Formats: sequence, C-alpha cells, structure tokens
Amino acid sequence: MKALERHLEERRAQHLEQLIEWLSIPSVSALSEHKSDVRRAALFVQNALTTAGFEHAEVMETGGHPVVYADWLHAPGKPTVLVYGHYDVQPADPLHLWETPPFEPQIRDNQIYARGASDDKGPTFMHIKALEAILRIDGHLPLNIKFCIEGEEEVGSAHLSAFLEQHKTRFAADLVLISDTTMLGPDQPSICYGLRGLAACQIDVRTANSDLHSGLYGGAVPNAIHALVELLDTLHSKDGTITVDGFYDNIEGLSAEERKAYAELQHDDKAYQASLALTALHGEPGYSTLERLWTRPTLEINGIYGGFQGEGTKTVIPNEAHAKITCRLVPNQNPEDILNKIKAHVEAHTPTGAKVTFTPMDSGHPYLAPYDHPAIQLAANAYTHAYGVKAAFTRMGGSIPVVETFSQLFHIPVVLMGFGLNDENFHAPNEHFSLVNFDKGLRTLCYYYKHLPDALSPQSL
Amino acid sequence: MKALERHLEERRAQHLEQLIEWLSIPSVSALSEHKSDVRRAALFVQNALTTAGFEHAEVMETGGHPVVYADWLHAPGKPTVLVYGHYDVQPADPLHLWETPPFEPQIRDNQIYARGASDDKGPTFMHIKALEAILRIDGHLPLNIKFCIEGEEEVGSAHLSAFLEQHKTRFAADLVLISDTTMLGPDQPSICYGLRGLAACQIDVRTANSDLHSGLYGGAVPNAIHALVELLDTLHSKDGTITVDGFYDNIEGLSAEERKAYAELQHDDKAYQASLALTALHGEPGYSTLERLWTRPTLEINGIYGGFQGEGTKTVIPNEAHAKITCRLVPNQNPEDILNKIKAHVEAHTPTGAKVTFTPMDSGHPYLAPYDHPAIQLAANAYTHAYGVKAAFTRMGGSIPVVETFSQLFHIPVVLMGFGLNDENFHAPNEHFSLVNFDKGLRTLCYYYKHLPDALSPQSL
Repeated sequence: MKALERHLEERRAQHLEQLIEWLSIPSVSALSEHKSDVRRAALFVQNALTTAGFEHAEVMETGGHPVVYADWLHAPGKPTVLVYGHYDVQPADPLHLWETPPFEPQIRDNQIYARGASDDKGPTFMHIKALEAILRIDGHLPLNIKFCIEGEEEVGSAHLSAFLEQHKTRFAADLVLISDTTMLGPDQPSICYGLRGLAACQIDVRTANSDLHSGLYGGAVPNAIHALVELLDTLHSKDGTITVDGFYDNIEGLSAEERKAYAELQHDDKAYQASLALTALHGEPGYSTLERLWTRPTLEINGIYGGFQGEGTKTVIPNEAHAKITCRLVPNQNPEDILNKIKAHVEAHTPTGAKVTFTPMDSGHPYLAPYDHPAIQLAANAYTHAYGVKAAFTRMGGSIPVVETFSQLFHIPVVLMGFGLNDENFHAPNEHFSLVNFDKGLRTLCYYYKHLPDALSPQSL
Repeated sequence: MKALERHLEERRAQHLEQLIEWLSIPSVSALSEHKSDVRRAALFVQNALTTAGFEHAEVMETGGHPVVYADWLHAPGKPTVLVYGHYDVQPADPLHLWETPPFEPQIRDNQIYARGASDDKGPTFMHIKALEAILRIDGHLPLNIKFCIEGEEEVGSAHLSAFLEQHKTRFAADLVLISDTTMLGPDQPSICYGLRGLAACQIDVRTANSDLHSGLYGGAVPNAIHALVELLDTLHSKDGTITVDGFYDNIEGLSAEERKAYAELQHDDKAYQASLALTALHGEPGYSTLERLWTRPTLEINGIYGGFQGEGTKTVIPNEAHAKITCRLVPNQNPEDILNKIKAHVEAHTPTGAKVTFTPMDSGHPYLAPYDHPAIQLAANAYTHAYGVKAAFTRMGGSIPVVETFSQLFHIPVVLMGFGLNDENFHAPNEHFSLVNFDKGLRTLCYYYKHLPDALSPQSL
C-alpha cells in the first residue's frame, strides 16, 4: 500500500489536471444542444481508460448517448468487478447563481468547483486512477475489471437496460461497484445499502385556443394557470402527505431496529434547517428527517411555467400552463404503477374548462442491498483504513436506476461506495467536490481492490 | 361629408402605408430593451400630426416613455376636444404562435395583422386621418383639438397622471375623446360608458438558500413551487369566487334595469365558448357572461414560473417560484385597498417553510360615464350615420386607467368610441384590426367632429 500511496501523491497534480479537462466538457445529457459535448466526454473516458492500461476500450452505441466499455481480464480464477459510473451531468441553470462558470473548473479551499465534480465525474475518475496506480506499481491487477461508464444517468438511463441485456456476456461480472452516493459527513464514511427509485412525468394544461386579454375575457373564461394550480394543489395535503390514491400502498413500515439505527445517527434537525436557511423543515408527519429521506416516497414539482414571465405586467389570461414532476420511490413501489396512479388522479381532478395531458417520463426501481455480504463488509474496512473511522451503514434518498437494473439483470450484489457530500450542490449551482475525499477515496479504493479477491471466497460469489 | 368621404377613399392606400410603417416599430413599453423603439414610435406620431396640419407638435418628457402633444386652436368660442390614444403596445410573446411576425404588418382578408393594429395604433391613427381630411377639404376645423398620445398605457400609465397635473393648462379641454375600446360585434357599434379598473402585483416565494437535489433532500424540506401552488390555490374557490377577505366589499349590486339591458343583448354563450375552443365557460356563480365581464371584478394569475423549464426532467427541489397577478376592478373598489387586502391574504396564507414577498405594481381606477351627455349621445348618431344601425350602450371589462385620470383631473366627460373587435387578439398572438372598421370608423369620426360644436350647447360644457 505504501508504494501505491506514494504513487498517488506524486501524480496528484497530473490527475487533477486530467479531471479538470474532463469537467470542462459540458456533457449535459438532458439538453439536445449538448449532444456532441456528451460524446466528447465519452471519448475522454475511452482515452483515459486506454492510458490507464485497460484493453478493448470502446465507445458503444446505445440508441441514446453512448456507453464506454473497457476491461482488464488477466486474473483467471479471480472475481470480476464491473465498475459503473456516468460521464453525463445535470443542466447548469440558473447560470447567474454560479460563482465561477460551471464548465470552467476551479480549485478553491481544497474543493474543485464544476458541474459534475461530485456527481459523478470526480468519483468515477477515482476508480480509473486507483486501478491505474495498482497496474503501474504491481504490473497487474489482483482481479478482473470491466468498466461501464454511461451518459444517460441524469435522464433516467433510458437505454442502458436494453443495452446491457443485449451485451449481457460482455458485461457479466461477480459484483458491481459504484461510486455515485454520498457519505454521511466529511469525517463519516458510510456504505449505502438502499436507494429510492424514480418516476417522472409532465402535466400540460390547456384552456382556450389562444392567450386572452384579461380585461375583455376576465371573469368569464378558465385560466390555464388557475387550473394547473388547482390541480397541483390536490397532490399533497397541507401537512405534506401525498394524496394520490394508492400512492403508499404496499410500502413496508419501518422496523423498530431500523428506527433505532437511524435515531442513533443523531441527525441534527436544527443545524440542517439552519444550513439551508429554512424557516421550517417540512415533510410527511410521523417520520424523522432521516426516515423521510431514506424510507419514505416523495412527489416533487421540479418546474412550473405558464403565461408572462418578463419584466412588469401583462394583462393576459394564459391558455397554457405546465408542470414537471418527479417522485422518489421506496421498496415495493413500482414506477409504472405509481405513474398510472398519478395519471388517474390528474384525470379525476381536472378542473372545469381545462384539458390536461399527462406524459410519463423517466423511471427507475428502488433498491435494497444484502448488507451482510462480504464485499459490502470489506467496503467498510476499506474506509476505516483510509479515514480512520468505522463506516456507518445508511440508506439514501436519491435514485440510481441502474442499481436495480444490474441487480435484476445479473443477480449480483451492487456495492455503493460514495465519496460525495450532501452539501456539494450536485443538481444545483456551485457544485463542488472535496479533494480530501478525492485523496482519501483513492486510498480507500486501492485498499478495496487489493483485498477483494481474498474477501470473496468462491462460496460468496 | 361627400367630399370628405371621397378624400378618404382616394388616400386609403397611402393611409394604410403610413399605418404599416408605424406598426413596424416594436414599441413594447413593458420591456426595457425596446426603450428606443418606443421613442421612435413617439417621433412617428409627432411627424404624422405635423404633416396632418397640427401645430406645436412635441415629444414631451414624462419621466418614463414620452407623451406626444399637438394642437389646432383656431376656432375661438368653440369647444376643445382632447384626443387621447397610445402608441405603445403589449409584448408579442409567445412569438412562435404568430402566423406572420408581429412587427411585419400584413394585410390578409381585409384585416391588418400586427401587434398594436387594434390596440391602439389603428384607432389612434384614424383620429389623425379624420381630422387631417377635414382640414384638407374645409381648410379649417369646426372646433379646437389637442392631442395626448402616450407611451405607457400597456404598463399602467405610470407617469401620465403627474404629467397631466403638471401641464394641466396645456391639456385643458371640454371633452376627452378616446378610441381604445371595442364594438359589440362587427355590425354592432357600441358606446362604452363603463370600464373596469386594474390592480397588479407580483408574489415571490423563497425556501432554501439554493436549489436542492430531490433525492438527497426530498421529503424533508419545503419546495418553493409547492408553497406557491398552495398559496395561489387559496385565492379562489373552486367555483371561481375570489376568496380574498373583503375583496367584494362596497360593490353595488346590479339594478334590475341593467340586468334587463344586458340580457337583451342576447349574448350567445354557446358560440362564445365554441369560438374559444373551450370545454366550459368558468366564472363567478350567479352572473351571466356579460355581467361577469362588465360588472364583476377578477383576480387573474397572468404568469407563473419556477424551477426547471427545459427539455426532459431535472430532479431538483426549486428554492424560488413566482407569480404575476392582475385584478380587474369595478366601481367602488379602490386599487390600493384591493392590493392591501391581497397582501394581507398572502401573509395570512404563507405556507410552512416559505418566505413570501408581495410587490404591488400597476393600478388604475374603474370608471362610469354620464351616458345621457349630448357628446355621448352624438357618438351614437355618428355610428348610425356610418354603420346604418343604432349603437348599443355597453360597459367593458378592460381598463383604461387614464379615463379615470382625465375624469378626476379635468372634471369633463370622457367619450369612448371604440372601433376594435373582441376577437382581434390584442394582448395575444396574431393581433389584427378590421379594415371595414378602419373605413367606417373614419367616416364615423368625421361625422362626429363636424357635428360636435352644434351638439354641445354652452350649457352642456
């Protein structure tokens, strides 16, 4: 380990330079104008993998944004790990709130600021560099490695499932390893063993065949914004409970053991509220903050728009209004079923004079891992090696639809080793990634890869 | 009259060419990027008035967009008419719904299509041309004329009141004449004797200090869009009644006589609904469509925005959401009082975890004219001369704040002779103005100006 760690120190500046080059590519998968940037980011990965010493590096077509594959398969009899990551990033708007431009990475206070720094280019890059270090120092890897770095994670991994099905043999492995989750805190590494799923939709309301003058028509005709507001306000009760019929069906209650474990993490609601400058926290009654975040589903309106948005006033009765919605799902909730229930709710609550269109969009299943698996237990030891503290076992409120995809397709454990922090503004302006976790994370990963073959007895595979 | 009408026929093509030149100037008063266009439109008016034979034409500063003044005061002992109009126009968005660009006027099917064609460049232009015709044919006018053509009507005439107060002597007159209202139908001229007032505001909701990731925070923190939706949905009951405390205070009920007069106009609700492609009309219970439009107040959300509005999905919990609102007011409602009541409502209904800012904006008082005044009765005769049918006496749902300003400042009657039609899409894409009403309207105005001195006995002034 000493030689490895010295190697990582010597190459640190060079590694950061390469990461900055990658972060400079605005690979926003949601926006079609960035299509060629997304591909450029894929080519960067292919090149980085080849340079690191991997073979068969290939940008593979999926029907959407491509997947980058590479492998190193010269450890016969040893386990094969499939490393998953994504090179696409969230849209960067609102741009005016960024202190430095989202695609001009800058290091300040030992943090690297850029869209994608924390989610997920930084952590993905660390796997490449940890394995490259082992290859350079040892001349070989102690196990077999395959990479699957995709470009559609931020838009629901629309093509990945069919793509993996089609190339099932090429991607076959004993274990999937992903770094796209967060640690519990800067000094508290954690192993995430549960993720929420996702179900997205759009609601479009239309009324008259044209915008209308509010003086001439006001009082006698429906207003699309009024209709949308009335409709959206039926989705939650005032206390935060989701009122879509059947939304909570089949969700298992929390065990006393889980409630106890989460309570022991001593989440500080006051500090949490203060850090977000909120006048109050708000969520489903009867659950603590961690329970709400990790074990309860949500229905969030992510965007709303209609009518006049410019300076001043415009006396118009808008004939169109729109809302974008995503739900976070927990085990036993099925995205298709949830979208159907929302659709039925929307149809049952369509206001007078409005025509409502419901469009289902991305979806992903929730996931719960077998957390007593040796590959998951080893992850805890790896963190302890690099951070000097015991890793906590947690769940997470976010969604990685592919986790469920890998689980369903390959029937193998998915290990989630996160290095991001919750306050690193991924999906918001001023996204950043801590270089403390970049450095310690590289050591954690080196330890993990070196010890995995011994931890995994043939029976546990 | 014959010579006048022949003159108007001969000059028709030339008049339309001039009007098209004026309509080509995007004088959008609400948008600061069009400031110089607004001034260009004022200079056009100054030039058109001078060419027509008026004197002292001047672009006068107001602190906002300028007012254009001109006069012809060579009829001592005769009444003085102040002609009011406006050269500013509504914003043209959404641009993609225009069949031809809003500022590239086009004549199709005897309609002129352009932003401002009907509201209010077309009708304002007709006054200039009717009086120019009389000057050319008779060599003089039968009465004194002053023009007050402003550039802030579409943004609530913010500076006009103080401006007129400051130049009270210059603008003093016996009568104000305005063409900025609509006729009841293409073959049914009408004299409008009542207008609704206006009260505008903006509501801004803020929650956390940044947009948040819906996976990591979803379920535990407030969402600014949810808060805005919850707040806005408290402004109306489901049936369309406004639920702001005290909103309807002091409004006089409709007299049996008025209800009968409006019922006799036989408004066709079915055809009205069909023409707007609506699945239902929607408004305050207990009132007919005309009663709702002319005699009842409204509260309309004109615009709403917050969070992600791009393609695809973005799993964000927005920390800001915004709404723009305007109310139409009826006699005995005071704009400041109504805005205070909405503010109090907003404060009383602020949802958990939200910070709400209320910003009052434009306002204007409602107006009811003395409709037995001879200058108003003569207007009916002028329409009968040009259209061959009796003019109806109506009220209108729109607002012209300056009508109340003129009424309060000069204590003189305001005569509203409209030539627009309700389906001419002012304030919406594809605004147009009927050239039938352009032609007949010019004749109506010539008749009116020629006969006004006789109709107005010294006692009636």
